[in-house]
This record gives sequence, C-alpha cells and structure tokens, in this order.
Amino acid sequence: MAIDFSLAPEHELIRARVRAFIQGTVVPAVSGVEEGDRDAYLRVLLTLREQAKAEGLWLPHMPKEWGGMGLGHVELAMVQSEAARTRVGPWVLNCMAPDEGNMHTLLRWATDEQKEKYLRPLVEGTRMSCFAMTEPEVAGSDPTLIRTVAVKDGDEWVINGHKWFISNARRANFAILIARTETDVPEGARGATTAFLVDLPSPGWNDVREVETMHGSTGHSEIVIEDLRVPDSQVLGGRGDGHRLGQHRLGPARLAHCMRWISQAETALDMMVDRALNRYSHGSLLAEKQGVQWLIADSAMELYQCKLMVLHAAYKIDRGEDFRTEVSMAKHFVANSLGRVIDRAIQVHGALGYSTDTPLAHMFQHARWARFADGADEIHRMRIAERAIAAYRATGSTSAATGGLPV
Amino acid sequence: MAIDFSLAPEHELIRARVRAFIQGTVVPAVSGVEEGDRDAYLRVLLTLREQAKAEGLWLPHMPKEWGGMGLGHVELAMVQSEAARTRVGPWVLNCMAPDEGNMHTLLRWATDEQKEKYLRPLVEGTRMSCFAMTEPEVAGSDPTLIRTVAVKDGDEWVINGHKWFISNARRANFAILIARTETDVPEGARGATTAFLVDLPSPGWNDVREVETMHGSTGHSEIVIEDLRVPDSQVLGGRGDGHRLGQHRLGPARLAHCMRWISQAETALDMMVDRALNRYSHGSLLAEKQGVQWLIADSAMELYQCKLMVLHAAYKIDRGEDFRTEVSMAKHFVANSLGRVIDRAIQVHGALGYSTDTPLAHMFQHARWARFADGADEIHRMRIAERAIAAYRATGSTSAATGGLPV
Amino acid sequence: MAIDFSLAPEHELIRARVRAFIQGTVVPAVSGVEEGDRDAYLRVLLTLREQAKAEGLWLPHMPKEWGGMGLGHVELAMVQSEAARTRVGPWVLNCMAPDEGNMHTLLRWATDEQKEKYLRPLVEGTRMSCFAMTEPEVAGSDPTLIRTVAVKDGDEWVINGHKWFISNARRANFAILIARTETDVPEGARGATTAFLVDLPSPGWNDVREVETMHGSTGHSEIVIEDLRVPDSQVLGGRGDGHRLGQHRLGPARLAHCMRWISQAETALDMMVDRALNRYSHGSLLAEKQGVQWLIADSAMELYQCKLMVLHAAYKIDRGEDFRTEVSMAKHFVANSLGRVIDRAIQVHGALGYSTDTPLAHMFQHARWARFADGADEIHRMRIAERAIAAYRATGSTSAATGGLPV
Amino acid sequence: MAIDFSLAPEHELIRARVRAFIQGTVVPAVSGVEEGDRDAYLRVLLTLREQAKAEGLWLPHMPKEWGGMGLGHVELAMVQSEAARTRVGPWVLNCMAPDEGNMHTLLRWATDEQKEKYLRPLVEGTRMSCFAMTEPEVAGSDPTLIRTVAVKDGDEWVINGHKWFISNARRANFAILIARTETDVPEGARGATTAFLVDLPSPGWNDVREVETMHGSTGHSEIVIEDLRVPDSQVLGGRGDGHRLGQHRLGPARLAHCMRWISQAETALDMMVDRALNRYSHGSLLAEKQGVQWLIADSAMELYQCKLMVLHAAYKIDRGEDFRTEVSMAKHFVANSLGRVIDRAIQVHGALGYSTDTPLAHMFQHARWARFADGADEIHRMRIAERAIAAYRATGSTSAATGGLPV
Repeated sequence: MAIDFSLAPEHELIRARVRAFIQGTVVPAVSGVEEGDRDAYLRVLLTLREQAKAEGLWLPHMPKEWGGMGLGHVELAMVQSEAARTRVGPWVLNCMAPDEGNMHTLLRWATDEQKEKYLRPLVEGTRMSCFAMTEPEVAGSDPTLIRTVAVKDGDEWVINGHKWFISNARRANFAILIARTETDVPEGARGATTAFLVDLPSPGWNDVREVETMHGSTGHSEIVIEDLRVPDSQVLGGRGDGHRLGQHRLGPARLAHCMRWISQAETALDMMVDRALNRYSHGSLLAEKQGVQWLIADSAMELYQCKLMVLHAAYKIDRGEDFRTEVSMAKHFVANSLGRVIDRAIQVHGALGYSTDTPLAHMFQHARWARFADGADEIHRMRIAERAIAAYRATGSTSAATGGLPV
Repeated sequence: MAIDFSLAPEHELIRARVRAFIQGTVVPAVSGVEEGDRDAYLRVLLTLREQAKAEGLWLPHMPKEWGGMGLGHVELAMVQSEAARTRVGPWVLNCMAPDEGNMHTLLRWATDEQKEKYLRPLVEGTRMSCFAMTEPEVAGSDPTLIRTVAVKDGDEWVINGHKWFISNARRANFAILIARTETDVPEGARGATTAFLVDLPSPGWNDVREVETMHGSTGHSEIVIEDLRVPDSQVLGGRGDGHRLGQHRLGPARLAHCMRWISQAETALDMMVDRALNRYSHGSLLAEKQGVQWLIADSAMELYQCKLMVLHAAYKIDRGEDFRTEVSMAKHFVANSLGRVIDRAIQVHGALGYSTDTPLAHMFQHARWARFADGADEIHRMRIAERAIAAYRATGSTSAATGGLPV
Repeated sequence: MAIDFSLAPEHELIRARVRAFIQGTVVPAVSGVEEGDRDAYLRVLLTLREQAKAEGLWLPHMPKEWGGMGLGHVELAMVQSEAARTRVGPWVLNCMAPDEGNMHTLLRWATDEQKEKYLRPLVEGTRMSCFAMTEPEVAGSDPTLIRTVAVKDGDEWVINGHKWFISNARRANFAILIARTETDVPEGARGATTAFLVDLPSPGWNDVREVETMHGSTGHSEIVIEDLRVPDSQVLGGRGDGHRLGQHRLGPARLAHCMRWISQAETALDMMVDRALNRYSHGSLLAEKQGVQWLIADSAMELYQCKLMVLHAAYKIDRGEDFRTEVSMAKHFVANSLGRVIDRAIQVHGALGYSTDTPLAHMFQHARWARFADGADEIHRMRIAERAIAAYRATGSTSAATGGLPV
Repeated sequence: MAIDFSLAPEHELIRARVRAFIQGTVVPAVSGVEEGDRDAYLRVLLTLREQAKAEGLWLPHMPKEWGGMGLGHVELAMVQSEAARTRVGPWVLNCMAPDEGNMHTLLRWATDEQKEKYLRPLVEGTRMSCFAMTEPEVAGSDPTLIRTVAVKDGDEWVINGHKWFISNARRANFAILIARTETDVPEGARGATTAFLVDLPSPGWNDVREVETMHGSTGHSEIVIEDLRVPDSQVLGGRGDGHRLGQHRLGPARLAHCMRWISQAETALDMMVDRALNRYSHGSLLAEKQGVQWLIADSAMELYQCKLMVLHAAYKIDRGEDFRTEVSMAKHFVANSLGRVIDRAIQVHGALGYSTDTPLAHMFQHARWARFADGADEIHRMRIAERAIAAYRATGSTSAATGGLPV
C-alpha cells in the first residue's frame, strides 16, 4: 500500500527454493552426464522433472487447480530468472517457451474438451506444442496481412499457407495455427483471423526445413501447408479471435524474455568489469581509464533501468491493469540494452571477445534476435508512440503513457 | 513489504492538498499582480507564505520539531514536483534551493547555538542563505583541489580565496563557506577542508559580479574573499569535515532537481505530441510519421525510466540505505534526458521551437545547466563505474551496483 | 584530371589576399571604433567597402560582368570562410545573406529591366533586400502548402498572407516574395507558386514584429500581408516557378552556411583542446583522460568529414553536375556536427562553458538554428533517402547517391 | 593541381580492366567448379593466376621492377575494391592479406639476400607467409608490453613466447615474427622489439590450434614458441625496429581493409533499399516510412563519408605526406559504419535478416571483427586525439589534424 521495492518474505522464500533446486540438484545432475550420451541425458531430465514436481517447483506460471504454483507475474519473473541460469532449467520446471505461452492461451481460450485433450498433457509434461503465426511473405506485426487461409468446407476447414520461424515444430504433438478465415473483412480491420488446434503430424502440414540463423540451426521450422483439413471443433476461441489470442499470449511471454536477457546482460557486465580489472595497457589498468569507466557506467545504468522496468511491468500485470505500454517499453529497451552491453563487453575484451574462448561471441549472435523476438523494435516504438498520443488526446497529458506513476 | 508502485493513501492526500494549494491559491494570487509592481508582488508572496503555514504546507523537508511536515523522501519528491509547477511554489513552501539544502546541513552538523542563530530564522522564513564551494580555477568535483584557504590566527580564522556560481549570494544573510584548513594533509586525501558560517555582509567578502550564463544573469555571484575573519565558533561541523558535509547536503538536493526536471521534460513531451497532432507536412500529420513517432516513443520511454529511478532512489534514502549510486544514476540520466526531450520537442516545432513564442527555447537554455549542476556528467559516470567495480570486487557480481533489486 | 585535394595556386593566392584584407584591414578598422558610436561604425564599414572594391575583393560570388570576382564554388567556399572569421567580413565584401542569394536569383531569373532596377543597386552595395517564403502556419519545406495567395486583378496582383522569420526585412528596399498563384493546381503538385518583386515599404506589407529567438532578437521579421498590390511586371521568373526559384537559390547558400559553421566548429574544437591542456582534475590533466580524448577524437573526425563533404559538394556545383544530394548531406551533417562539437567543448569547460565568459554559450544558442536553417534535418534526411532509393531503382545500386565517387 | 575528385583516364582504364577480368574471367571460372572438388578448384585458381599475370593484372601494390603494376595508393584502393567483389579476387591478383603487407615490409626492410630468399617467391606466387605480432596476454597496441623474448646466444637468437590470431600460419612457408630483444630498454620506451624471419615449419614453433571466432574457424592460429632458434642473419631491419616496421606495414593495409568494407557496406545499403521497396506493412511500403528513410539516409551519408576519407587518405600516402591521422580516422570510421549499416539492413529485413537466407547475417558476424582488426577503436581514437592535441600545441590550431584541407 506504499512504494516498496522489496519482495514479500514468502516470495523471497520461493526464490531461494528455486535457486537451491537449480544450483543444488539440476546443475550437478546435468553436468554428470557424459557428453553425447543422448539417452542418459534424457533419463536425467525426466528424473529432474519428477523431482521438481515433488518439490512443488512445477508450472510456476499455472494456477494451482492445474497443478501449478499459482504465482503472480512479479514472482514468476524471479522464478524464470533463477531457472534460466541453466539452459535446461525452464524445461525441468515445465515453464519453457513455447509451451508456457500455449498453456496460458489454452487456459484462457479453450473449451473444456479442448483443455482435457491439449492442456492436460502439456501441464503433465507428456506432450509438446508449437505456435504457428509468422509468415515469410508478410510483416508478422500486421495481422491484416496474414495470407494463410482457412476455408470452410462442411464441418471442416481447409487450410493453405506458408509459415516460418515456428519454434519447436519438429517435436510438437500439436500446433496452434493462425489463419485468415474472414475474407470479407475490409483490409485494415482486425478480426480476420482465427486460431486452430492442429494435431501433428497431419497430412498437409509439411515441415520443409529448419531455418538457419546467425546462431546456427535451432529448431525454427519452415512449414508449407497444403490442403490441411481440420474439423470445426478444433477452432480455438471464436472466429476472428486469432489476433487477440496472439496478443494475449505475448504479454507475459515478453517479460519472461526480458528476465532471461537481464541475466545475460548482467553476466556480460560482470565479465567487462573483470577484464577491466585484469588488463593493462598504455600505462594503466583498463578499469582506471575514463573511457572504459564510461562503458561500465552506461551498462550499469541501463541494467538498473531494465530491472526497474521489468519489476513495474510485472506489477501492472499482477494488478490487472493495462500493461501493454509498460511491456512494450520493457521489451524494446531490454532487448537493445542486451545488445549494447554485450557489445561493450566484447570491445573491452579485445580479440579475445571476438573469439569463442569466452561466451560473449555466442551471446552477441543470440542477442541480435532479441530485437525481433515477439515484436521488432519498430513495432514497439510505434505502439509506445501511439499510446502517448492517445493519452495526450484523452487527458491533455502523456503521463498515463509513462508508467502512470505517482511522480 | 512487497513490490508496490503506488502511494500510501495518506501521502496521496498530501499530494492532493499541495496541488490544490498551488493551483487554487498560489497561481491565482500571483497572476493577479500587475507586472513590474515589485512591492505588490512581494506582499502577495509573503501572504502566500502565511497561508502555506496555516495549511500545514510549510517546510516539507524538515522534521516536525522544527515546524516541518516530517515527510520521507518519496513524499518529498512528490511535494517538490507539485510545488515546482509554478516558479514561486517552492519559495512559498520554504523548500527552495539553496536554503533547503542549507537547512538539512545545519540540522545535521550545527551546534545548538548555531541552530538557534542560523537554522531558526531559516525555518521561520525570515532570513536567506547561500552555499559557497565552487571555485573558478579548479574542478569542483575534486575536493583535494580547493584553493580557498583558512588560516588560524588566535581565536579567529583568516580566509582568502575565490568562489563563483554562488547562488543567492546577493540576498543571503549568511553563507556556508568551504575552505582548506588542513594544509599539511597530503595531496589526494579527503579531510582537508572545513565549513564556516559567515555572516553577510562581512569585510573581506566581496561580491564582484553576477556571472552571466546561457540563460542570462540569474543570481550566481562571483566572490573574491580577502582577509575575511571568522571566529572559531563559526566552524560548522568539525575541522576537515567540509567535503563530507557537502556530499551529505547534495544527495537529497540532487533528487529535488530531478523532480523539477521530470516536470519540465513531461511538459516538453506534451508539447511535442500536441504539435505532432496539429502540424501537417508532406502528405500526413507529423504524428502519423514513423520518425516523429520514434522521437515521441524514445522520449516517453526515457521519462518512464526517469520516474522509476527517482522513486527508487527516494525509497533508498527513506530506508536509510546507501543511496549514492542510485542518486548518481538518477541525477545523470534525468539531466541528460531533459536535454534530449526538449531538443526533440524543439525539432518537432520547427522554427517556432527556436523562437521564444513557446517556452521551449528558454527551457533548452536552462536544461544545459543540468549536466553540470551538483556534479557534472563526468563525475557521476566515474562514481557509477567505481561502484560497479567495487561491487564486483567485493561480491563477484555487479548486482549491488545496479539497484540491488530482487531481479 | 585526377584526384587532388589541393588548391590551384591562383586560388591559394586569392585566399591569402582575402585573409590579409580581413585580418590586416577589416579587423583593425572595426576594433578601433568606440563601442556604441553607431555613426562612426557605419562610416568605417562604408570605407571598408570602398577598400574591398579597390582591392578587387568585392562580390566574390558574382560574375565579372556584374563587377564580381567570377569565382567557382570551391573558391567561393574559401572566401566565405575567410571572410566569416570576422562578423562584418561578408558584409564588407558584399556577399552576405540574404542579398547574396537574392543576387544569384535575380541573375538567373530576372528580366533585363528587373536586373537594372533590382540587381544593379545590390551589386553596387547601395540597396538591401529580403526573401519572403516561410510561413508560420505551414511547413516551409512543403511548397504545396503555401497559403499566401496572389490573385490577378487586371494588370495587378492582389496578395494576402502571413510570413515570418524574414531576415533583414526591416532594412530591405525590396523583397522577393513567394505566393500561391495557381489555385487550381491539384494538392501535391509543384508549380503552384510564383515569385514577386515587392518594393519596400508598400501599403499592405505590415512588418508586425521581430521574432525573438533563443539567441535574442536578430532581425527576423513577421509580416502580415493585406491586399498588397503588385503590377504584373513585378513577377520574377514565370508563373508557377516559385518553388524552382527558391530551390535554385538555396543550393549555394547552404554551402556558404556550411563554411561558416565549419569555422565555428573548429574554434570550438581548438577551445576544447586548450581547456583539456590546462585543466587538472582527479589525478591528471583532462587531455590525458581517455574519455576526454574520445570527445576530442570524435570532434576532429567529424570536422574532417565536414570539410571533405563541403569541398566535394562545391566541386560538383562547379562541374555543373547535380549537386542536390551532396549539398543535402553536407548541410545536414555540418549543422549537426556543429551542435555536437560545441556541446562537447562546453562540457569540457564545465561551469565556465555555461557562463558567457567564453563565446561557447552564445555559439551553442546560435548553433541550434543550424538544424532548421535552409531545410530542417527531417527534410534533408527525406531527400537523401529518396535519392538513394531513386538511384537504386534506376541502376540497381545506391552508388550514385553516395557521391558518385570512383570507389 | 586543383581540387578534383575524378580519376585520371589511365586509371579509369585500369579500373575497367580489373573489373572486366574479375567479372568476365574469374567469376565464371570459379562458379564452374563443382562444389567440394578441392583439386579442381585449386587448378582453376592457379590457371586464373597465370591469366592475371598475362593480362598485367598482377601485384597491383608492387613496383614494376618486382613484377608489379606500380600503382599509387589511390589506384590501389580501386583495384582492391574491384578485386574484392569476389572472394578469391585478391588471391588471383596476388594482393591478399597477409602476403600483401609482408611484401611491402620486405621491400622496405629486407637485405638483398633476404629479398631474394623471401620476397622473390612471394611476388612469384610460389610461397605464402604470415605475420606474428599479437599476443593473448597483452594489448597488441602497446608495443612496450610484448612478452615474446629473443635472447642472443652466439650467432643465434633463442625465442620463447606466445602468439595468437596469426592469420594464414598453417599455410605459410615463413613468418615475420616480432619479439622483444632489448630487455634493458625502460618500460614505456619504443625500440624494444625486433623482427625475425622464421622458416616454417621450425622446431619450437608450435601451432597449437586455430582460434575459433564469432564467424567460425578461419585460419587464425595460436602459436606457442619454445626455444625457437633463428640465426642472426634472419633479423629483418635493425635491432629495435620491430614496432616501426609493424606500423609501416599497417598504414596501407588498413586502407585496403577499408576498401573491402566499403564494398560490403554498399551491398548492405543496396539490400536495405531493395527490401524497403518490396516490403509492405501497416499501410505503406517500408520505403515510404519516415523512420526507415532515416535508416537509409544515415547509411548513405556514412558511406559517402567513408569514400571521401579513403580517397583522401590514399592521396596523402601517394603524396608522401604524413598519413597516420587520416588512416586512423578512415579505419576507425569505416569499421564502425560497416557495422551500423549492416545492422540497419538486418533490421529492415526483419526475421529474414537474422536468418542465413541472405548474406547479411554472416556479414554482421564478420563486421564485428573490423573494430579490432589492425588497431581497436580505442587505439585509433587515442591516436586521433593525441594528434589533434599535438597540432594545437604546435600551431595554436587543430586544423592540421582534421585533414590539413584548404577549408
């Protein structure tokens, strides 16, 4: 009931338990597996999932009636952050993308039958899923442009189209697929698309390749959809709800990204400082040089801002307030800070930073993706501006679009 | 006891009262005075002060036993912000610079006798003061360089030196003056300077001119000090405490600056949006152009960050925690954001923005000062870096230097 | 006939003569006048003009048949640069704005009778002029928006409208005025405006005030035009040529601005280095600190780029090639560099830089105007992009839009 | 003998011949080879070298008496640029790094016997070389720190040390190796290192691995040197000349880098424009959006500046003038522009730009190296500042450090 930047004791406790489980159980178990022994690795992971369940560290993002921890978003942010300190952490806790977002989506939009068939095995950890919206030919941020089309044919829909960057598609047991159904909606209108539940594999769903990116080939599929037939009962949400459903899914998912990116940026800043304390050149340690100090100071300041923004956005979600501006600002700023901090850390490392002898090089390649993931920079800046303009129009002040804070 | 970004109800109430007093009483009273009628103006101001006292809106920064409102820094930030919406507001509430900082200083460092003689009339609003530290020949941020020297001569000190940018000196009844006393302290050591209470006018204190700046001549004096004699009882704090006393004074003063700068930046953003909604060029309103939207979005995002930082820094002061890093980051970032937001607003206004037909031109000239006031950019970036380095050295992580937040 | 960055000997000679005249004759003459003695000052200036004529340093921008020096634009750039080292230099040589651009315009567009009546007294230095295009209500860069309207009434035109930022209007004997004549041209088309020669004063031309700006009140008038009547013979150029005429006028005028701005930026860089060599703080001279070195290095690099760009743009004008992209790039970049270099110089000077004890404060206030003068940043960036796009469309490469250089 | 930005006709002719040979002969020959057929590929390359020799397009950087084309640096820049449009071009013309720089070095510093033994086979294209200076433990830019030590033992030197990022080491027949010889030179002095010619393989020269980088493993070796013995006759240049020799080598090599980087940046800008003309989103083509236009305009402007800087630096080298400041500015600015232009092109491409479906992703990974290659950003900025300071000290103006141009 008054400005407070500390955690409640019960949440500090959860945080401590997640950290202890990740550091004390997950990390040792995984590091004990011999490299390349795929079967042993899988056995270890499945065992860890059982342990997570037993510890009550399972589905941090789901309500208790679905077997989850029933946390708010501030606490979820912490749990994601702690889990992400090891790569398999979110998978062990069953809160990894894209299944996490798909569970949110099913919980909100699915019928009871659909929940039993699709959500139940996801929360139990026995199945996997993917989310198929992005298309190569059109801007993903503009829902009016989607070209994949579903045409009603009796009790079925016949779907044709082209998707790519569909994460996890090769391992998924089903997809949530967005397609245009309302072809007579005027160009520019929302409400033209609908979501479908598609069992995988299905005839007509052709996974033609994994798209290779700047950081290698990491499970983002390109899908050609030809005469894929789906019964009407597989529509998820209502007709024309496709875009709203996608946006609902993205809010918390974007914050989870931010949490992981903050962890990475902090690692990069720590490495930058460490290097500056150990490298001598032209008469002094790097840490004693004014310019290097500026690189450190600017990085510290940005990281501080990232943390404040993420905490505040999570707080707004938890309060049930409109969080879209705050999440857009956090997502855009954290993604860009991540790139800048890693870039500075590389520069302070010199040639070593460009080599793969430190993790910075790979972090740099991954970080470039952050400026596209879940809305490119251009989309978020447009939305932030639109909301500042709308706030000014409505109230004569932009204040509601800069956090609605009591200053 | 858990993350909260809202105000306590009792503080929301104070905020509403200050706003009502400023908008409902101060603004109408001041605007009713005929321009140029100096005497009438002064009478109005003195009446307003009586009203503020009667309303209990007097000395928001002082404890109740000294007649103040006994607020914490979060609340103080709000009050300053509301008061600063009209230029005379802080004066009416008796919380304007430099008296505000001097009251803090006297409260913390003065003897009981000194408090009665100097603090009492300040809190009663019957006297004014100045603070004399900055010197033209040396960098003010480096206390080891101060050249003004006080030499003990029996029970007196004889002081010689040169100060400038001493705000309010012409109207002050006394000065807090910083001079080097410990000439045998090795170069580089702190503890070489001492604070003195100097009654004004005094023989040897020569106010040679008001320094003219980019925004005109606004009461910053240049002082030549020649054989000024001060009794030993006028030492404020202990010998060698001059620098510590100055730093103690600056923390909250910097936040008060930030609050006023945030108000100004918000005004500039509001004007930017207003203009963008009313100016048409090359086929569309400015507000519909992607580039102008970027200017608006970046400004909104920075303002959001400014607000979060100031709230958090005030929260840390209130908790009695070490706030120096947070205040440095807030002061540096808000000062620079202020300049950027005003600059963008001017650009969106075109030639009109460069004219004095809008307040933006004068705001721009004033804003440049923010990057020097109470520590230049270079000093704060150095301190932020030093603290990130120190945190890493102490704990293996820079986390404590990025707000010490629970993410 | 091959890459060369040096001047021809005959031009090096002219440069030396201009420099000698400015430093050896103009500066001493002007500095000898007692401050405030307006009459004496005017007498000195008129004498200097006679001396300039006698030395053959008169009208550097005009062909020999009009009494000028017959220089190309590369040489003109140098002469402007040397002349501008003292404020009155361009006036003494009769090559100051806006008369310089108006002479260019009359030479290109006026009839023989108009030349005798308007150009002749300008080149002789007996009359002055102004150029009235900018309007407060609409974006000056978009000629389709001009609202000042001229309506044909028999042999006369009746003109109504509103102009501002009309430099030199109070002292001008005539104006070149741009007004909309072709009211049936579709919105968005060029060719809707026409230029008129207006004798001053004239009934209907009301100079309502000098617009005050960030650097004071400096002769930019606001004009309300009410039923101003102008005979048809006063049309300058053809009907509908108003915009083309304005653009023709601006190309070389923009480069002349650039030359003066480069001089100023160089002064600021010199002052920055001087200060860095004389100020000690926190253990070393500023010049020894890495961050301050970055400020110096970035400024030197930008100044280098400014010089290369201006030389190349002048070269293209002299060759009769399309110079619009190069002039846009030079104008935009030099204007912005000017602001950045002065800003850095101020920061290195600390509080002194904010005071008016150095010229930096006033330079800063003036420099902000450069980002609007003769096309705001936004216009030039739009044009540069349009030409890169056009080049790519025409040739499959943007190369022609990056200078068309042999690399 | 006067400002000129065009090529001499004879050089325009050479440029046309190189372009014709690369496009008409090299590209078709290479593209005809079946992928993976290493032997066929090598045969084609060797044949192409014979054709290049026959066409007189061999060793553009070497004087005619050594079988080269005897070009100046301006022309060399063009030839490098044309050759680099295909990856093998510089190798076919025998002007690829590091052999190109090593030939320069041998020509300048080797004895006649050394030239016959080492330079002759390089110019004939029968042998390859590497240059071993950089060390993992110390900053390569600071020659006083080099730790590899050569100790005189009778007529031999015994060398111990550690090098990395030694390009081409695995294929080289000899190395130019920099080692500390003058151990009694005071810390901070230049003149402590000496260059040695080392036949490869040699006992004590241990190539322990290829360093993997952000763009894969591309022939940069790490070398551990243990008791490598080299006869005294293998000293290249004089004792203590190691650093001077390395600097002499780097000047033109840096410009050659710049030429190749400019080609790449131009490719990226072309792709950015192409994409902007073909991608539609939120109501318009990207090319019609103001923000995207800013990205294009800024890139065009930077590319323009890069080209002007490289032409001027080459001109200074050709004139025998001190070119170090100009080369530092060009190297630093082109390297950073390259990164920025590619980054913007990726952003305009969206997810496609992050995939490897376009060359942009790999270009991005390579471009990061440019900010380290042949002197990190920090070194060049330091040198540029030092020279601006030195110019000001010597002449009272920084003008000589901003190109020494006639404006």
